[in-house]
Amino acid sequence: MKTPLIDNLQYARFSPKIFEQMRAGGVDAVHVTIAYHESFREMVLNLEQWNRWFEAHPDLIFKGTSAACVRHAQETRRTAIFFGFQNPSPIEDDIGLVEICHQLGIRFMQLTYNNQSLLATGCYEAEDTGLTRMGKQVVAEMNRVGMVVDMSHSADRSTLEAIDHSSRPIAITHANPAWWHKALRNKSDDVLRALTEAGGMLGFSVYPHHLAGGSDCTLSSFCEMVEEAARRYGAAHLGIGTDLCQDQPDSIVEWMRVGRWSKVMDYGEGSASAPGFPQMPEWFVDNRDFENIRNGLLQTSLTEDEVCGIMGMNWLTFFENSFGAAP
Amino acid sequence: MKTPLIDNLQYARFSPKIFEQMRAGGVDAVHVTIAYHESFREMVLNLEQWNRWFEAHPDLIFKGTSAACVRHAQETRRTAIFFGFQNPSPIEDDIGLVEICHQLGIRFMQLTYNNQSLLATGCYEAEDTGLTRMGKQVVAEMNRVGMVVDMSHSADRSTLEAIDHSSRPIAITHANPAWWHKALRNKSDDVLRALTEAGGMLGFSVYPHHLAGGSDCTLSSFCEMVEEAARRYGAAHLGIGTDLCQDQPDSIVEWMRVGRWSKVMDYGEGSASAPGFPQMPEWFVDNRDFENIRNGLLQTSLTEDEVCGIMGMNWLTFFENSFGAAP
Repeated sequence: MKTPLIDNLQYARFSPKIFEQMRAGGVDAVHVTIAYHESFREMVLNLEQWNRWFEAHPDLIFKGTSAACVRHAQETRRTAIFFGFQNPSPIEDDIGLVEICHQLGIRFMQLTYNNQSLLATGCYEAEDTGLTRMGKQVVAEMNRVGMVVDMSHSADRSTLEAIDHSSRPIAITHANPAWWHKALRNKSDDVLRALTEAGGMLGFSVYPHHLAGGSDCTLSSFCEMVEEAARRYGAAHLGIGTDLCQDQPDSIVEWMRVGRWSKVMDYGEGSASAPGFPQMPEWFVDNRDFENIRNGLLQTSLTEDEVCGIMGMNWLTFFENSFGAAP
Repeated sequence: MKTPLIDNLQYARFSPKIFEQMRAGGVDAVHVTIAYHESFREMVLNLEQWNRWFEAHPDLIFKGTSAACVRHAQETRRTAIFFGFQNPSPIEDDIGLVEICHQLGIRFMQLTYNNQSLLATGCYEAEDTGLTRMGKQVVAEMNRVGMVVDMSHSADRSTLEAIDHSSRPIAITHANPAWWHKALRNKSDDVLRALTEAGGMLGFSVYPHHLAGGSDCTLSSFCEMVEEAARRYGAAHLGIGTDLCQDQPDSIVEWMRVGRWSKVMDYGEGSASAPGFPQMPEWFVDNRDFENIRNGLLQTSLTEDEVCGIMGMNWLTFFENSFGAAP
């Protein structure tokens, strides 16, 4: 069977247009974010919106819950949509909601979104105190039910403790190495080494604030970075998590940054002079552009098998080992 | 394969003791109530409690979601637990919660619990205005996703309209014919005829307020009533829904009756002089007593096949046709 194409992080303003672009781009599976600051009930409203899309567009998309759904998507020429949270806010202070959310189809949860959470410390905090008491319990529960710990927006110590505490490999679904582009959201060599040595996965982001050169980053610079990451960590631990925020109004990036936790604006990765969503690099604008990345990677010293792995096969293997109940 | 034993309504104070009694009684499946007045979030807390029981007692019980789970329960000598609401309160004013609740495993929902709801009229109201605008929409949505409309606590006109409006057979999971014992909760011949002619199911209750003679009702009187119901409606449309409330403190029947909707006590089927749970008839005290009912029914003119149907096979057939998405 053809190697799958998987994008392991998007938060677009989804619409039939984008679902059609996923098909045009041959994207077999997408992990979509359904919560940034939502309470449990608010997150369920987002699930309801997805249920309506699944009902209205069964020819394009369906809900993904297991690795087999990716193969089913390939066979039926559709896109399997997997759900994840970028913040543990939907589980509130209730560990029982981990299993409930898994039953509702959630397969990834970040322990933090930039700030301190009930579980761990985010990458924007001044002090990183690692996993909290509840954080350790929740990681064990996520391990039990089959929900992936995602540390994309977490601080280093918290990330290292999550890798260590988790009995199953974890993920950083959307970030790049700090040695390529220094940013609070990009990850240190130490973190990436610990992540991948423990069997975890890194998904490369195409969000301009995570790219060397920002919106002007060249495809060859991006692909050379991937090549170097494969040399350091092994190509089998690498995938794509574009962080595509297509068609979102700038009000959404404000919501992502301050939610309800601040009365004053926080510009996060942006600035007062550039507060909105940055312009995507010309070689990756929407779901039809994965072929550019694939072709760019094939220009490097990576083998065709390694490129197929990075474009989706590695995530599929990770899904196979991650979404079921612990043995 | 052995004919299954299914009790299609219990609201016991569940515990490992009762799960063991289910096994001792050879009960293959039980539909349990998980909401009377709960909001969505409160109902989810009840689901969490069940998840803990499933995790702690996998040798005794597991969550039932399809008819195949009943066969699986028989094969593994366990009890499949199916979830239902006796009130639509958990879907609040949000039709999208029907599918969410189905995804969480809910397979039955009453449109009303005694009072007027957002969907229909309960059996204790003075006026019955039938299905509301939202009620019609919700019935169609329940039909679509595979959630059974249960009219056990609804008024007659609402029940007849639900039977008529539903594109799939509905159920009265726990009630008896009013021609045997006149009670607000028991059902008229007209309602039972319309229900069963449309392919629906009646589950016989053993709750004393629904029995001729109350707690002193004899097994033979109960079984003769079933025999007569089979003559009138056809044995294939009959099953058991005991309404077993074992081990509940009387504070629970108060909660069932007034929830948060009244500041004054309402005694429902009880009275000021007998406000608590009534004593069960001696021939049905807990899950180990189904054999008494089976043997009683075998003393009537019902055939052995008809008795097997009433004890579980008819519900199993109904489950097969009811729990999946509409074709």
